[in-house]
Amino acid sequence: MNAQRESVRIVLASRNTAKLAELRRILGGGYDLLPLPDDAPDVAETGGTFEENALLKARAAAAASGLTAVADDSGLRVDALNGMPGVLSARWAGRRADDAANLELVLDQLTDVPDGRRGAAFVCAAAVATPDGEERVVVGEVRGALIREPRGSGGFGYDPIFVPHGDTRTTAEMSAAEKDAISHRGQAFRALAGLLPEVLGS
Amino acid sequence: MNAQRESVRIVLASRNTAKLAELRRILGGGYDLLPLPDDAPDVAETGGTFEENALLKARAAAAASGLTAVADDSGLRVDALNGMPGVLSARWAGRRADDAANLELVLDQLTDVPDGRRGAAFVCAAAVATPDGEERVVVGEVRGALIREPRGSGGFGYDPIFVPHGDTRTTAEMSAAEKDAISHRGQAFRALAGLLPEVLGS
Repeated sequence: MNAQRESVRIVLASRNTAKLAELRRILGGGYDLLPLPDDAPDVAETGGTFEENALLKARAAAAASGLTAVADDSGLRVDALNGMPGVLSARWAGRRADDAANLELVLDQLTDVPDGRRGAAFVCAAAVATPDGEERVVVGEVRGALIREPRGSGGFGYDPIFVPHGDTRTTAEMSAAEKDAISHRGQAFRALAGLLPEVLGS
Repeated sequence: MNAQRESVRIVLASRNTAKLAELRRILGGGYDLLPLPDDAPDVAETGGTFEENALLKARAAAAASGLTAVADDSGLRVDALNGMPGVLSARWAGRRADDAANLELVLDQLTDVPDGRRGAAFVCAAAVATPDGEERVVVGEVRGALIREPRGSGGFGYDPIFVPHGDTRTTAEMSAAEKDAISHRGQAFRALAGLLPEVLGS
């Protein structure tokens, strides 16, 4: 089939309006990006990797909507925790934990970890899936280090303790535009945008 | 120097009387095993591995006592947590957390992990250090799987959710003797016992 490049409708496997707005900025004018329909079933994030979870969500959204779907799965990999919280980043302190509890637990677990061994990375897998089974997944990553006390009120999640390499501020101390420019999610979705023409044209 | 094999005095880098009794059984009659002196300084377990921490504790105890010292560091490696809690096993839910809180957090983090991916291992590093700088470290490991609800009242730590390969009971449902026979700590200290003559004879 031939994709109509001018107005291809794509579903984002999320109902988060901030994420929808961010992705509209990144993907640009060639796409009509829609939120996940209200009646789409929830997807259990049972994958062991960000890539698996992003693909699970994109496939489910494509199946539910009959449209090409994009999805992401993101988290923090902490070197001293062997890459965890990883896919459990949003529920590290338990399924009912909030951002503050997750962040406090990571800080507590790292109490005895000296400054030279506090490396970490924000990682984002972005996936696209079409109703007829085409799919791609890419990964964006930003490396940095974890400080000992939260700083800044922007962002969410672990942003207040993450200082990217080459900066002295946490990602919670940056403007949204500054963070987008370097962030794992920005990188992953800019990379995915580069693959959309070949996926949609197939 | 020549070791007096009949009554070599060895310090255990612990004041845990249960551990002292267990180790006396394992090492047998050739050694006079003493608890850590009350005035020995506490050692920060800053190592990134069980081996490092066991050596840190053995060296510190040897320095404080002027005697050969043995020490161990143990924990649970969970496959789906990339080998964590690992060296953080005793403080996984935070520095003030108890065994029950640590166990509950691991169960919570593994909620979505299916039965086929719930592998884990109890790991123990046992170290010996002499005042003149001889040292050895060995590792014992028992592999198994984590169940979803605690069972049994024996043992401590993560015993109520750990079923060793080849058994259907948790290590908290075994007698102390049964657990000793297969346990990571039993294996590590039996292995270390085999090295003591060469360390003490040097």
